[in-house]
Amino acid sequence: MENRRDRDPAYGMTETLLRTALSRASAGRVTPLWVKVACDDARDAAAWAQADILVAGRLDTAAVAQMKNLKMIQCTSAGVEGYLPLDWMPPGVELFNASGAHAAKVSAFGAMAVMMLHERVPARIAAQNRRRWDRTLRPAPRGQHVLIYGAGALGGAVAEALASLGFHVTGVARRPTGPRPGFAEIAGPDDLMRLLPTADILVVSAPLTDETRGRFGLAELRSLPPGAGVLNIARAGLMDYTALADLLEEGHLSGAILDVFETEPLPPDARWWTVPNLMVFPHVSADDPTSYASACASILADNLAAMLRGAPLRNHVDPRLGY
Amino acid sequence: MENRRDRDPAYGMTETLLRTALSRASAGRVTPLWVKVACDDARDAAAWAQADILVAGRLDTAAVAQMKNLKMIQCTSAGVEGYLPLDWMPPGVELFNASGAHAAKVSAFGAMAVMMLHERVPARIAAQNRRRWDRTLRPAPRGQHVLIYGAGALGGAVAEALASLGFHVTGVARRPTGPRPGFAEIAGPDDLMRLLPTADILVVSAPLTDETRGRFGLAELRSLPPGAGVLNIARAGLMDYTALADLLEEGHLSGAILDVFETEPLPPDARWWTVPNLMVFPHVSADDPTSYASACASILADNLAAMLRGAPLRNHVDPRLGY
Repeated sequence: MENRRDRDPAYGMTETLLRTALSRASAGRVTPLWVKVACDDARDAAAWAQADILVAGRLDTAAVAQMKNLKMIQCTSAGVEGYLPLDWMPPGVELFNASGAHAAKVSAFGAMAVMMLHERVPARIAAQNRRRWDRTLRPAPRGQHVLIYGAGALGGAVAEALASLGFHVTGVARRPTGPRPGFAEIAGPDDLMRLLPTADILVVSAPLTDETRGRFGLAELRSLPPGAGVLNIARAGLMDYTALADLLEEGHLSGAILDVFETEPLPPDARWWTVPNLMVFPHVSADDPTSYASACASILADNLAAMLRGAPLRNHVDPRLGY
Repeated sequence: MENRRDRDPAYGMTETLLRTALSRASAGRVTPLWVKVACDDARDAAAWAQADILVAGRLDTAAVAQMKNLKMIQCTSAGVEGYLPLDWMPPGVELFNASGAHAAKVSAFGAMAVMMLHERVPARIAAQNRRRWDRTLRPAPRGQHVLIYGAGALGGAVAEALASLGFHVTGVARRPTGPRPGFAEIAGPDDLMRLLPTADILVVSAPLTDETRGRFGLAELRSLPPGAGVLNIARAGLMDYTALADLLEEGHLSGAILDVFETEPLPPDARWWTVPNLMVFPHVSADDPTSYASACASILADNLAAMLRGAPLRNHVDPRLGY
């Protein structure tokens, strides 16, 4: 197991985490002969020469290609786009990612942020600052429409929490599939402009790709109905923040919660700190340092236990699809 | 059906609401011979003389005592403490309240507010005001303890939403009963001081009675662990807000969300507007004008349909218990 030196130690895998997860997942039937843990700036060469399984915070693909006994790689990141194409993988080796490790945290954060937009919390904060008692009542969530752009692990986790609170959730996915928990409907990218005018709240939770960059410009954001709210927990590059700020200032949108910015930390002179009804969050929506490493350990442990039972594995990266 | 003139018309019962609810609840088998609707300052005397069922926003108990055909009263308020004792009720008449009509709204609002306290939103707002990027990460809700004082319709609705987000919820009830949805445990009032030090977040959702007035003073609030948050969606009289403000100012508590105040609207010179990490909400946690009247109609309709089937009724007020 190789952890990243440049990352908070709370994200690091430990032998205890892995043995605990394995014991629970396999009812004690799977026990590693040995586990070695090191940071990537102090590699354990002897362990690399013998390891059957590699757990890595950042994959050194050239070094992996030399591993003789390797059968399985468990990445502790959800995205593996930095390692594509997977032509460096030794034959017979399978790669697994950490998609879903953020789910519990982002599910609760996303539900909170959508409820805050629904409840007009940004405007209520402004009212408190002016010592103004404005008893505008907001309805219960039932019948309120939330549009989630990006229906993967992040968007799906948010959708499930929102549906349980009563919201009507529509997803936009690159490849719409059948029914999924939390979503009343999953549409394709071509339906976006049709769906925007129906959305009380827009949630952006898609990966940043050539296809999604700049997807939400002035035309898209203005297509939201008056009073709509916007949440971005994905990447700043998906949205034109200047257009968003303009629509907040003119009052077309009732509020926005942004957790991601082009430059982080956000510089003190950035416009976004003071746009009316815009709440700045410091990139905290998805990371849970207390559970992230154990979630990664559980993915690996569950898969090893599943192999023993001949059951299907999860989080397998398909080399042709690249995710 | 008699609505209150002094209340937002959105709360008023209408013939359409009742007929729709009855049709749905009884599959068309229950249809009123007639429905008359008026405000309480323009009473329909002829209707009062004949009605079998009275739906009332505020009960004129002296007038009710004169009704000859009356069999059933449906109040459109949850509390009926203003009508006690029930010695004015004609023999054979049953009284029903609107407990639970707030459930969907308060469930979502309470979950939002608890998540905001858990996520340290009050401190994040202060950081944004200072243009400060403070990336303090907060864990997912699992393992976080919420103590709900008052496990009735309000507290129970909040508990269910919180449990679905992963929080560990303990309730304090006047009469602890068996397991209830959302609550991991329900304790009695004598357990409060033992439970306070275990609570990451305290939710106050009990009615204001002689027993609960001033229940949370400096000693109780200081018994919460450092960094705890406090939510009051009940009545201001349950809590010493001066003690709360002092504990927020000294940093023992991380945040508070108050939706209720001794004087409402809160006057511009009130201290509470500017206490650090205290968020003022203008009494909006439980009222949903778009669904309240239909929820009341559903209680009545469901009960009439249940009578037809010989099934148990809900929201019946026991004259001995007074609720």
